[in-house]
Amino acid sequence: MARAPETGSDVHRERHRTVLETAARLICEKGYEAASVQDIADACGLTKAGLYYYIRSKEELLLEIMSYGMDIFEERVLLQVLNIADPVERLKACMEKNIFLVTEGWSKEVTIILHEHETLTGAARAQINARKKRYVHFLEASFEEAIRDGRIRPIDPRVAAFSFLGQVLWIYKWFRSDGKIPAAQLAREMQDLFFGGLEIAPTKAPKKLAPKKTAKRRKAA
Amino acid sequence: MARAPETGSDVHRERHRTVLETAARLICEKGYEAASVQDIADACGLTKAGLYYYIRSKEELLLEIMSYGMDIFEERVLLQVLNIADPVERLKACMEKNIFLVTEGWSKEVTIILHEHETLTGAARAQINARKKRYVHFLEASFEEAIRDGRIRPIDPRVAAFSFLGQVLWIYKWFRSDGKIPAAQLAREMQDLFFGGLEIAPTKAPKKLAPKKTAKRRKAA
Repeated sequence: MARAPETGSDVHRERHRTVLETAARLICEKGYEAASVQDIADACGLTKAGLYYYIRSKEELLLEIMSYGMDIFEERVLLQVLNIADPVERLKACMEKNIFLVTEGWSKEVTIILHEHETLTGAARAQINARKKRYVHFLEASFEEAIRDGRIRPIDPRVAAFSFLGQVLWIYKWFRSDGKIPAAQLAREMQDLFFGGLEIAPTKAPKKLAPKKTAKRRKAA
Repeated sequence: MARAPETGSDVHRERHRTVLETAARLICEKGYEAASVQDIADACGLTKAGLYYYIRSKEELLLEIMSYGMDIFEERVLLQVLNIADPVERLKACMEKNIFLVTEGWSKEVTIILHEHETLTGAARAQINARKKRYVHFLEASFEEAIRDGRIRPIDPRVAAFSFLGQVLWIYKWFRSDGKIPAAQLAREMQDLFFGGLEIAPTKAPKKLAPKKTAKRRKAA
């Protein structure tokens, strides 16, 4: 990594980000225990002292990688969809944006560390877990709202939330950007697979409606 | 671990299994690089020489843990459902059995190592990947068959296979056996969530049917 002179906080932020992504790649390759601070410094093109300018300890580095992963996730996914009024549209947009996050222009290694490393302890671990739980609760609450509004058939909101998450987050394990399925198509297919069978279609209108009215509704749909 | 006298190959197999599960637990706790052969021997209540009676090297131990995970999976899931004639029933049974495998009476750590460790190289890695791919292909082929038979609406079989897998395998990341959702309920809810919206219901019968016939079909359903 070429070392540009630091001219401002933007440059510092950018280099900090590069350190986190490079460290994430190395930790995924070698394992957290096996990757020494010296290895990480070497990979970043920094001296050990230079690296300690960005991080305080190896455990803090791990926490920072995960926090960085959660920051990006919240910025690009959660904050983008929070204000969508319709719960089903909100969930669909959330699925699409989360799929784009794990498939496009994003350090896969940061995601892997975020979801596979249990190495953090104490307060650091609690901090990351609380942010992950907030996402699960957001999904659960949106599913509950969609059921209450009669937008989807009744399902267990908790099972739905974790099924949504599993479907979306498992992607980083198999998706290849040069593979057969482009990310945009994958997002559409997964939205259809998940919500296509949940949304209440007009044909499922209450049976008590007069036959003529039902027929009209069907034609209108 | 108490050392019972070895009276036959069953005892040997049982102890080998215990070594693999104990090693899996330790590797998940400490990380593969950090867990030394001595640590693993200690955890198993064996001397290092005693441990080498069961394994040839640390990398081979990792391969054995993964092969053991795949053996159990094939025995308790895949072989149980392969002969079910109807593709949707086959997939549903497969989902249920796989959910039971990741939630009940099974070493969670073996599953984690099977799906999270990329440490294997060369032939060992290829061997495990080929067995994982066989499962993906089985799922894909079953979805294709279900579409061809008109049992489910048309979807991308590959996306469906990986969505199925993600939903089921993500469970080990969040499921607690003392939690709110029992495994049997989880299996039913996930089957409904996944297949409830895919199966072609009688109400979606071709529109060309005479109205009276359609009404009869609906009543019969």
